[in-house]
Amino acid sequence: MTKRVCIIGAGPSGLAQLRAFQSAKAKGAEIPDIVCYEKQSDWGGLWNYSWRTGTDEYGNPCHASMYRYLWSNGPKEGLEFADYTFEEHFGKPIASYPPRSVLFDYIKGRVEKAGVRQWIRFDTIVRDVRTLPEGGFEVTARNEAEDSETRETFDHVVVASGHFSVPNVPEYPGFDTFNGRILHAHDFRDAREFIDKDILILGTSYSAEDIGSQCWKYGCRSVTVAHRTAPMGYKWPDNWQEVPRLERVEGRTAYFADGTSREVDAIILCTGYRHHFPFLPDDLRLKTANVLASDDLYKGVVWNGNPDIFYLGMQDQWYTFNMFDAQAWYVRDVIMGRIEVPDLASREADVKARKDAEAALEDDYACIDYQGAYTKELIDETDYPSFDIDASNRAFHEWKKHKKKDIMTFRNNGYTSPMTGTKAPPHHTPWKDALDDSLESYLQT
Amino acid sequence: MTKRVCIIGAGPSGLAQLRAFQSAKAKGAEIPDIVCYEKQSDWGGLWNYSWRTGTDEYGNPCHASMYRYLWSNGPKEGLEFADYTFEEHFGKPIASYPPRSVLFDYIKGRVEKAGVRQWIRFDTIVRDVRTLPEGGFEVTARNEAEDSETRETFDHVVVASGHFSVPNVPEYPGFDTFNGRILHAHDFRDAREFIDKDILILGTSYSAEDIGSQCWKYGCRSVTVAHRTAPMGYKWPDNWQEVPRLERVEGRTAYFADGTSREVDAIILCTGYRHHFPFLPDDLRLKTANVLASDDLYKGVVWNGNPDIFYLGMQDQWYTFNMFDAQAWYVRDVIMGRIEVPDLASREADVKARKDAEAALEDDYACIDYQGAYTKELIDETDYPSFDIDASNRAFHEWKKHKKKDIMTFRNNGYTSPMTGTKAPPHHTPWKDALDDSLESYLQT
Repeated sequence: MTKRVCIIGAGPSGLAQLRAFQSAKAKGAEIPDIVCYEKQSDWGGLWNYSWRTGTDEYGNPCHASMYRYLWSNGPKEGLEFADYTFEEHFGKPIASYPPRSVLFDYIKGRVEKAGVRQWIRFDTIVRDVRTLPEGGFEVTARNEAEDSETRETFDHVVVASGHFSVPNVPEYPGFDTFNGRILHAHDFRDAREFIDKDILILGTSYSAEDIGSQCWKYGCRSVTVAHRTAPMGYKWPDNWQEVPRLERVEGRTAYFADGTSREVDAIILCTGYRHHFPFLPDDLRLKTANVLASDDLYKGVVWNGNPDIFYLGMQDQWYTFNMFDAQAWYVRDVIMGRIEVPDLASREADVKARKDAEAALEDDYACIDYQGAYTKELIDETDYPSFDIDASNRAFHEWKKHKKKDIMTFRNNGYTSPMTGTKAPPHHTPWKDALDDSLESYLQT
Repeated sequence: MTKRVCIIGAGPSGLAQLRAFQSAKAKGAEIPDIVCYEKQSDWGGLWNYSWRTGTDEYGNPCHASMYRYLWSNGPKEGLEFADYTFEEHFGKPIASYPPRSVLFDYIKGRVEKAGVRQWIRFDTIVRDVRTLPEGGFEVTARNEAEDSETRETFDHVVVASGHFSVPNVPEYPGFDTFNGRILHAHDFRDAREFIDKDILILGTSYSAEDIGSQCWKYGCRSVTVAHRTAPMGYKWPDNWQEVPRLERVEGRTAYFADGTSREVDAIILCTGYRHHFPFLPDDLRLKTANVLASDDLYKGVVWNGNPDIFYLGMQDQWYTFNMFDAQAWYVRDVIMGRIEVPDLASREADVKARKDAEAALEDDYACIDYQGAYTKELIDETDYPSFDIDASNRAFHEWKKHKKKDIMTFRNNGYTSPMTGTKAPPHHTPWKDALDDSLESYLQT
């Protein structure tokens, strides 16, 4: 009997899995029956922008963490698909830091070409997954558009629901009586809401630097960023300051660990996301921190507790789209019996070795190279098109240096594609002056 | 063997169910084993205020729709517990429209006295309920504080998870590019966020009138309320206007059906809530509009599809706390075999008769009396203390008239308790001048 595979989520990871199977089919292989459940009404995951916050049109938690005016915060030369280049999609070279609409268009282009949309059940949320005594899984899903439920069995489950969708939200003394807005980055949508406002950001990672930069670019009055361990340390504009840990708020006043205080209109919590799988029981559920070497995942994708369930993209990420591809191709080949998964002891040893290697990494440059090597390791075991990982690593290294030099201008640089060898042209307008983030505007030359 | 009863939710309805069983036990009856699952870390349901919006500390959807500075929008004389009066709790008569903290204190007082807290598993979200082939239910719940899951069987399930917690969020053209904040009433927390702001409210029910009034009271610049069918028609302050249906927004400009437009800073969707039970399969799930006579619930509480599962408080509400009590006492007596549930045909006839009666109601006064009569009907079948429903109805009728007379002063009135016969004293400060909503401030004389 034909195997049945359930894929949860049609974002970049889930779409990579669909494309992996379609690619095998196109080469003449017999592939399993595929069902992909997607709770949103369109594909693209986080790249599918929605103005909604909180709950969606059906009362389920919003997936979207995307905000308006977002431009890629890393060079496109680090995330290019090896089987579908930017140049193939757009018909010409484009600049290195595309806004959301451009990346969304690119992601869609590949899967439209592959013709995999009919495998996806949109507006359908997975409610429960259970292991069956005879092996395999029972998946309960609700089609919210039709208000009806299905319960189907599968031989394999691929969890591709992402981990930048469910916010981690700490509480500080006084939050319950703060007289402005408190929001998590997950609910940030339009920087123009904060024009002429004094904003306080908690956190020092990507959301903090990028949301602060957005608010600055669109005209907030000031940005204050509080850190728990160390400041980000970039060269910030004059109305931007970094301060130590927030201790408490009172009314609209925020008090910091160094004894200073500041009146603020809004507090934006850039405090990260959670690996959250409300549809999974304990015996199938990944528990891991946001790290390069996830707990309990052999080769970063096979769940050690039950090797018939897989997780894509659950790592902290320098590499993204093409790493998800590498993972998806690998998982496909495990499911199709082309790659054999070793016994539990070997799988656990694999995870331990990866964790030990991560622990020994000395800086971000080493982390980039580590994840590049991991991506290459998986690619070498499948027929995913090999590419010049060193060139990708180089693009990331240069990007880090450009950011360090000037965080408000790094997006004006261009890098060399590891797929085509083409050097990206400069964008027609410096990032800080480009207020229109539409695809049409970006593609103008 | 002792029966096992699962109660989902420890808000006013769930607590009423706990108190109903405890009351029977106190009178010497043998009662079932009770497990009450509550996803929040404290009891009180919507009356348990949280500053959080979106998802809670565990990544699950926030239950809270409560906002700061909320005062009861109906007289406390309409919602008093018959077995625990306001006078018993506070030791003296108090004014008729208490703020949240006072009502929360009152709700807690009764269940603390009853000693039912040990039946509640806090921080525990119900993930799935299934009917078992042999009868009864399997309930899967996750204790988020301990990050562990239980799967237990029960003879009965009482769904008391409320229906003012999951927002109904419509979309209008231009929402995806609106340059301010769009929020549902569910996410409204502190009116001071909107000081000096122009706000647009969509909707004409309680949330619309009360959130608008809050924003006005705490100093917003203007309130515009758009209606789809008819304006609320109260005497509004000068900086408050009612306009026809919203057609679209562009930038920060809202365009209405009469051709007028207005610049606004925020759009607050007071567009109601959904009956949403993500933990229930199709064969156990109530589907109903927000009406006085719910679909498919015999006596308003027994699920016709399977009379071992019950729903509390799923109706549109004039009556609240004491109606939940009437329902909970009734459900308790069904579970304990004191009341027999008739066959399906009779149950369906009961629902039809209630729906026909509701359809014939001519105005809000008739609706009040209808729900009063329903509450009395249930009370008469159990040992819940009978009380003067006519006096409650009268309090509601007077309240309606006081609102009509002046929506910004109606909370300055007092009514007669149907339980004690005492007339409430006037509050020491008119509502519009009382900016401090603390319990201490309210109880000052």
